[in-house]
Amino acid sequence: MTTTSHGPNPRLEQWEKRTEWPLASVALIFLITYSVQVLARPPHRVDSVLETLNTVLWALFLVHYLVRLALARPRGRWFLWHLPDLAIVALPFLRPLRLLRLVVLITAMHRAAGDVIRGKVAIYTASGSLLLIYVASLAVLDAERDEPGSAITSFGKALWWSITTVTTVGYGDLAPVTPTGRVVAALLMIGGISLLGVVTATLASWIVQRVAEEDTANQTATAAQIESLRAEIRHLTEAQERHNRECRSATPAD
Amino acid sequence: MTTTSHGPNPRLEQWEKRTEWPLASVALIFLITYSVQVLARPPHRVDSVLETLNTVLWALFLVHYLVRLALARPRGRWFLWHLPDLAIVALPFLRPLRLLRLVVLITAMHRAAGDVIRGKVAIYTASGSLLLIYVASLAVLDAERDEPGSAITSFGKALWWSITTVTTVGYGDLAPVTPTGRVVAALLMIGGISLLGVVTATLASWIVQRVAEEDTANQTATAAQIESLRAEIRHLTEAQERHNRECRSATPAD
Amino acid sequence: MTTTSHGPNPRLEQWEKRTEWPLASVALIFLITYSVQVLARPPHRVDSVLETLNTVLWALFLVHYLVRLALARPRGRWFLWHLPDLAIVALPFLRPLRLLRLVVLITAMHRAAGDVIRGKVAIYTASGSLLLIYVASLAVLDAERDEPGSAITSFGKALWWSITTVTTVGYGDLAPVTPTGRVVAALLMIGGISLLGVVTATLASWIVQRVAEEDTANQTATAAQIESLRAEIRHLTEAQERHNRECRSATPAD
Amino acid sequence: MTTTSHGPNPRLEQWEKRTEWPLASVALIFLITYSVQVLARPPHRVDSVLETLNTVLWALFLVHYLVRLALARPRGRWFLWHLPDLAIVALPFLRPLRLLRLVVLITAMHRAAGDVIRGKVAIYTASGSLLLIYVASLAVLDAERDEPGSAITSFGKALWWSITTVTTVGYGDLAPVTPTGRVVAALLMIGGISLLGVVTATLASWIVQRVAEEDTANQTATAAQIESLRAEIRHLTEAQERHNRECRSATPAD
Repeated sequence: MTTTSHGPNPRLEQWEKRTEWPLASVALIFLITYSVQVLARPPHRVDSVLETLNTVLWALFLVHYLVRLALARPRGRWFLWHLPDLAIVALPFLRPLRLLRLVVLITAMHRAAGDVIRGKVAIYTASGSLLLIYVASLAVLDAERDEPGSAITSFGKALWWSITTVTTVGYGDLAPVTPTGRVVAALLMIGGISLLGVVTATLASWIVQRVAEEDTANQTATAAQIESLRAEIRHLTEAQERHNRECRSATPAD
Repeated sequence: MTTTSHGPNPRLEQWEKRTEWPLASVALIFLITYSVQVLARPPHRVDSVLETLNTVLWALFLVHYLVRLALARPRGRWFLWHLPDLAIVALPFLRPLRLLRLVVLITAMHRAAGDVIRGKVAIYTASGSLLLIYVASLAVLDAERDEPGSAITSFGKALWWSITTVTTVGYGDLAPVTPTGRVVAALLMIGGISLLGVVTATLASWIVQRVAEEDTANQTATAAQIESLRAEIRHLTEAQERHNRECRSATPAD
Repeated sequence: MTTTSHGPNPRLEQWEKRTEWPLASVALIFLITYSVQVLARPPHRVDSVLETLNTVLWALFLVHYLVRLALARPRGRWFLWHLPDLAIVALPFLRPLRLLRLVVLITAMHRAAGDVIRGKVAIYTASGSLLLIYVASLAVLDAERDEPGSAITSFGKALWWSITTVTTVGYGDLAPVTPTGRVVAALLMIGGISLLGVVTATLASWIVQRVAEEDTANQTATAAQIESLRAEIRHLTEAQERHNRECRSATPAD
Repeated sequence: MTTTSHGPNPRLEQWEKRTEWPLASVALIFLITYSVQVLARPPHRVDSVLETLNTVLWALFLVHYLVRLALARPRGRWFLWHLPDLAIVALPFLRPLRLLRLVVLITAMHRAAGDVIRGKVAIYTASGSLLLIYVASLAVLDAERDEPGSAITSFGKALWWSITTVTTVGYGDLAPVTPTGRVVAALLMIGGISLLGVVTATLASWIVQRVAEEDTANQTATAAQIESLRAEIRHLTEAQERHNRECRSATPAD
């Protein structure tokens, strides 16, 4: 899922750095065409144009994957660590699962977010959750809409279902019945667990820090304090050495 | 959502500090009138008086927002960071969403709570959860009551639904069917995730601290210990300097 | 809910310490009689004997509460901090809520568990969860069994419902419909959130500690290390002072 | 559930170490035969062969348990601490619960995973969750399939139910109705709570560490820094001692 290389490999890293934003743009164009296909249900003529565009976008992903595979050293290890990337490229037969390509957007977001770790995590979680909910709604609608017996028949219902699922509330008033819809649901649930985990972990980190700051009497010794201690010892050492020199010069006759 | 200003801006801060309690009172009056409107369903004559009062309260929120916007520097940045505040002022067309104004109560509560961080978080979470459950019950009842096909038809049912939702249990015996009711539900679910997160984080912080206290052999060096170390080094330095002076005076002939 | 006194109050503390185990026994007897009443549904004659016994047990709780109120200083503050204890004594009109008396068992368990904080939390959580599930099953069965339209009609079903609720799974195949049953459900959900929180927090504390142990290069300075540093400085100071004395005695003529 | 011995007991430990992989293989064979029995529903002739194989595997577990009991010192304490192991051996009457034997796989996995604690936890959680979902699906299908009124009638449905349960979403579109199915569900829910806990705890540990690294100004004093401080003090002490020796030799006449 990630594009980090294992071990130093400057050519692969350079390629990944250069293609990051182009690839994010490709993913974004894909998201727009997919949204149009699902939400507007264009007439057949327009739809086949969008399908062709979609095939071109898929080819770009495939090329990107193959270039990275060619540049990777050792190739076998890279292949194993990037099996999810292969899945994204090789599994376009189920239309909703094509949306997995959007994970490249998450990688791009990762770099766009700020430097302060907790702020980064917060922005990341918020925008990631919104994207996840939107994409899952599209995918489940695409999978379930024409299924007899399915209750998810409009984007509004799909959105409502996504929100109840990602928060792990799960009323069950709407639930997917097709295999594709259920795969989407499983991915959304994993997203929901991670969301819960990230929210809690960020809060925990914040509370732990605030509690530590509060407890001034038992505050942890900091590196800065050790540094000032070192300065005092150095000062003392210099005084001692000066004295030793003076002593030696004072008793030349010995 | 917050009223903190970014960067030093004494006039804006002064305004926010002065208006905090008046604004909290306005929000409280709004909560009471809204509760009466939803729970008692007063006759038309009384209801129009309450609606007029409600418009006056809304005007006060609007004035507060405009004054803050006027005082803010740089204004553009303030505007962007306070888009939720704009939403609170600008979206009164959906009656249940007016309750978003109550977030000013949370800010006030924040200051009223004690100083010890974990106690503060506990009080904050408990009172915030109770307010959230009450307000969500009112809002969902207001939105769903007259909808054909909705099961949430009394305050008792609305309260039961709110509790099952905020705890993420989500039986699904009752679930909102109107768009407004579902927006309320989504806000409640976000509240539920945060609630779970805060409870867990507070417990984690407490356990981490207790475990650290227990492990006396590997207790972290504290700032106090560094301070006592520094005192000893200072004492040593003074002894050295005294000696150096004595030495110099003992060998005046050099 | 707790029996800790605020501020030193030796007489109150002594009373609470002495009555802890007797009170736990009373609560246990109450749990047994209640279980018999709900599960065995004894004939009227036996049931009225159990009700009489129940009144006696309630009187013991009342006496315990009044003695503590009499011993407490300042009494007003104790009263406010122990409002839940008053609720336990004063609200016996709803039979299932009588089970709130069992919180004294939790206090007793608190002392019985070992000294190692994480082990303590684990034992506490496991036994507390089992007790909570059993008691909630009894209470919801007692409240819902004879209600038309309720699906919770046997202890097995009640137990299944309790487990799905406390884990926040909430299928909704069974859900309480009476106000008392829903109050029991709300308490159980709060228990479930706490359970999730405690499990997560204990795991987090364990992982944080293991990660810290692993990172030997950046291991935190410990109090023991500061102590050994202090010993070296003391040794140095003594050497310096010995030297100063020798110097003074070597130059008596000054 | 664990195979760790309490107190040093070299013979027991040696036995457990030697039998770890053979036992894991036995559990794996059992998992395969059970999967065939549930998923393929072989004709009676094949099924009775599998049942016989199953009895042999059970005998191996029994022998392993008895050998450990014989080697354990003190035996009574070992017996109490390993009651879950007894349950695994003694409760084969409910076919789905036989799968509890697979916990030996978890122990084996524990040793196979790497050394870095967070990576270990991640691998452990991911593979454990997949195994848990697969095994719970098999067990619930086996228990529910032939029950009138049950909705879990195919492996696909069982898998979907397992995923919604382990993530605590719990739609309730499918829910077990047999006692055995509900015991499986309860174990799965406990697994789900632990899963949520582990994900959150690992994330919390990571965020806490990253926040600490970020805060360079207040970085905790490390053992390495204390060590460098000690080196400087040692250097100073040597200078002092050299001086003392020189002083003594400079004033031989005293």
